[in-house]
Amino acid sequence: MAKEKKLVEAITSMDEDFARWYTDVCVKADLIGYTSVKGCMAIKPAGFAIWENIKNELDRRFKETGVQNVYMPMFIPESLLEKEKDHVEGFAPEVAWVTRGGLEELQEPLCVRPTSETLFCDFYAKDIHSHRDLPRLYNQWCSVVRWEKTTRPFLRSREFLWQEGHTAHATAEEAAERTVKMLNIYASFLEDVLAIPVIKGRKTDKEKFAGAEETYTVEALMHDGKALQSGTSHNFGDGFARAFGVQYTDQNNQLQYVHQTSWGMTTRVIGALIMVHGDNSGLVLPPRIAPTQVMIIPIRQSAEGVLDKAQEIRDALCSAGVRTAVDDSEKSPGWKFSEQEMRGIPLRVEIGPKDVEKGQAVLVRRDNREKTIVPIGELADTVLALLDEIQKNLFEKAKAHRDSHTYDAHDYAEFKEIADNKPGFIRAMWCGDQACEDKIKEDLSVTSRCIPNDQEHISDVCVCCGKPAKKMVYWGKAY
Amino acid sequence: MAKEKKLVEAITSMDEDFARWYTDVCVKADLIGYTSVKGCMAIKPAGFAIWENIKNELDRRFKETGVQNVYMPMFIPESLLEKEKDHVEGFAPEVAWVTRGGLEELQEPLCVRPTSETLFCDFYAKDIHSHRDLPRLYNQWCSVVRWEKTTRPFLRSREFLWQEGHTAHATAEEAAERTVKMLNIYASFLEDVLAIPVIKGRKTDKEKFAGAEETYTVEALMHDGKALQSGTSHNFGDGFARAFGVQYTDQNNQLQYVHQTSWGMTTRVIGALIMVHGDNSGLVLPPRIAPTQVMIIPIRQSAEGVLDKAQEIRDALCSAGVRTAVDDSEKSPGWKFSEQEMRGIPLRVEIGPKDVEKGQAVLVRRDNREKTIVPIGELADTVLALLDEIQKNLFEKAKAHRDSHTYDAHDYAEFKEIADNKPGFIRAMWCGDQACEDKIKEDLSVTSRCIPNDQEHISDVCVCCGKPAKKMVYWGKAY
Repeated sequence: MAKEKKLVEAITSMDEDFARWYTDVCVKADLIGYTSVKGCMAIKPAGFAIWENIKNELDRRFKETGVQNVYMPMFIPESLLEKEKDHVEGFAPEVAWVTRGGLEELQEPLCVRPTSETLFCDFYAKDIHSHRDLPRLYNQWCSVVRWEKTTRPFLRSREFLWQEGHTAHATAEEAAERTVKMLNIYASFLEDVLAIPVIKGRKTDKEKFAGAEETYTVEALMHDGKALQSGTSHNFGDGFARAFGVQYTDQNNQLQYVHQTSWGMTTRVIGALIMVHGDNSGLVLPPRIAPTQVMIIPIRQSAEGVLDKAQEIRDALCSAGVRTAVDDSEKSPGWKFSEQEMRGIPLRVEIGPKDVEKGQAVLVRRDNREKTIVPIGELADTVLALLDEIQKNLFEKAKAHRDSHTYDAHDYAEFKEIADNKPGFIRAMWCGDQACEDKIKEDLSVTSRCIPNDQEHISDVCVCCGKPAKKMVYWGKAY
Repeated sequence: MAKEKKLVEAITSMDEDFARWYTDVCVKADLIGYTSVKGCMAIKPAGFAIWENIKNELDRRFKETGVQNVYMPMFIPESLLEKEKDHVEGFAPEVAWVTRGGLEELQEPLCVRPTSETLFCDFYAKDIHSHRDLPRLYNQWCSVVRWEKTTRPFLRSREFLWQEGHTAHATAEEAAERTVKMLNIYASFLEDVLAIPVIKGRKTDKEKFAGAEETYTVEALMHDGKALQSGTSHNFGDGFARAFGVQYTDQNNQLQYVHQTSWGMTTRVIGALIMVHGDNSGLVLPPRIAPTQVMIIPIRQSAEGVLDKAQEIRDALCSAGVRTAVDDSEKSPGWKFSEQEMRGIPLRVEIGPKDVEKGQAVLVRRDNREKTIVPIGELADTVLALLDEIQKNLFEKAKAHRDSHTYDAHDYAEFKEIADNKPGFIRAMWCGDQACEDKIKEDLSVTSRCIPNDQEHISDVCVCCGKPAKKMVYWGKAY
């Protein structure tokens, strides 16, 4: 028993120190490894398999809307990065520069892409000629680099994986429509697949992407009451097109600027998965994203018939479309239980000599630890039903947690009281002036998360200055 | 008609100038675009869709042998790159260096990975402890950078996409077995999916990978008689393990060094696809790798019932598992034919008002342009059979071409005569001394491609020095 306990004991309790709990889970659930490259992590098989599932799910949804995948260079010449003024100001302080290639100094430094708007614009300027070439709906899956000072696995790392979509349209309306369409894809992916409830909204001017006219965001609340921006979709209007000369001839043979969007989701969402669903036994994965959905753990596996039955069950579940594995390693069952829990595998099947005799198996849910004894003939149906139930339960639990950690502030005193004492989202009215936004950030250490699509009327006046309010805003401390 | 011709006329004939024909196909088949980043290309949707199919096929084959995907950082600290002497000597001259991050000079330069042996070794040194941790069968899909002076789309570019597998084993035997297993996967993938016949063999010491004990290779012959190394698999023995201290405790509690392999296939194989199967009308894609296998082209598409029938056929073919599209753009049918041929789509279905009336469609093969008129009820079966036939035919054609361009040289004069006048593989005996290999390269501008697994006895003596021969070698000019 000493050994079994060790794996669990090694995790800090989330109530004691949430940040340490988080990194403990990243490491103990075998998602990442530390490397000799400062600020960069190694994503191990258990972590990368989650990303592969995220990628497959998102990629399918993108392609259903006509998006095509491409690949652009990872380097951006300095002169190209500098073409759009706001953009370069936003990114220049945090890029890595290649200054030597082979044995020679480069005449022009190249930055490692922090994002690829400039490359896509440069490409579109050459590739788009006529209205018949539009829309262009391109996306790429790649890694990008941002020279962060403090880093944390998945949440903030100098190199991370993502997808970045870059589209070009004939009209402002089409670009606006695409921006919202992609935000909706992110929202439904996060809710339906990752079981993470989100607030959809728009960023304030202060918080929007460097070079964008509008930035839309999906915001999620983590278990510790901090917010995580989980996906963004930007409408550039024709700003980049003017900077890069991306033009097409319309039906009347007139030269027009294209209207552009970009949208991205990153390996950060793995951090969100951990911090929304995890508990003191480790990771908890929603069944739809879990690389392994069911782990079969034989009890007294050397006893006659046990391993055979375990493998038979695995084959039956695999045939039913369930991602199933058998842990037939030489560890003790208790150790295997801890590992399965630590790795967040949604369901466990226990099967021992007595179960074989009785033609049954024991099912244990990861989310609430409920045990069910099921006749083997009914196992596949029960497993499928339970996986659905777990998926639903995780979403409902996360939503209840978020709702119970969302507070309305009617005046500044109340705002301050909540910000100081109640981790969570704070909803409050805003006049629309950046001065108030700045003051709130300075005074209360919370930032505007978004202007939600679903507006509610909390009071008539700005929570900060008392002038007439224009919008209801979600505020919070953010990762 | 003027317009239709333009697309075809724009390609250089392959007999006139093969190199120009090649780049023409890359551009006109919409596989790549040139960028403002010297030596780096943009891979456009038609090119990237081929890579996605290659990736999916290979990834499935890897996973069937227990391989797991991971992701390591793209940067390698200088001190890490320098740990294995042969390796750094091989790669240092062709890497790109990051020397600034954010606004600061880095204390230690980081190179952008040209390959990741050093990162995997560094990782394994921390991650592997016991024999129970072995084997480690990791792979990653990523891009790498090599600072090439002359570049060509897919064949040689400063950044390219690839997979790199890195495994660690308890014994030399297991590592040797894995090296050969992966070579065999590459060979069967190239032959069965890309319809490219290959020679499997071992590189000479001169040509092997920097730091490897043995390098295995699959070599293919292009249409112009030049060879292309299409995949390599390296056995490192315990060389890297010793340099990086990758050790495990065995069953007897003794510290042992692991034995390692690495193996890679790159976007180069898209170049091979083009140069093995292409013709003067453009790309020719084997059905198993073609993103679109059948293009339906309506004739007089405004006539009643034509577009409906085209879409009905598409739906029926899609249901039969055939990747099918309808070209209902406003271009003329002739223009669409040229485009479908240029893009290498294996089969075209022509359907006009008369065909609709007669309940038939016209099928045209891309590989030999054979036309068949088929009753619509039999279309799906005929298409499936034809796709198989095209796949087989492309392989047979490529093999016949390779065999008729493979020559045996019995002595140096004959070797020289062939090397000067007959593009292709040259098979000749070799004593095993690098001096002879150097002289042959210097005199005849051919390099040793591989020591094939299937040895034949061509003569008793080395083709160069006349001393007793040890091995039969394939020689050739290479990309």
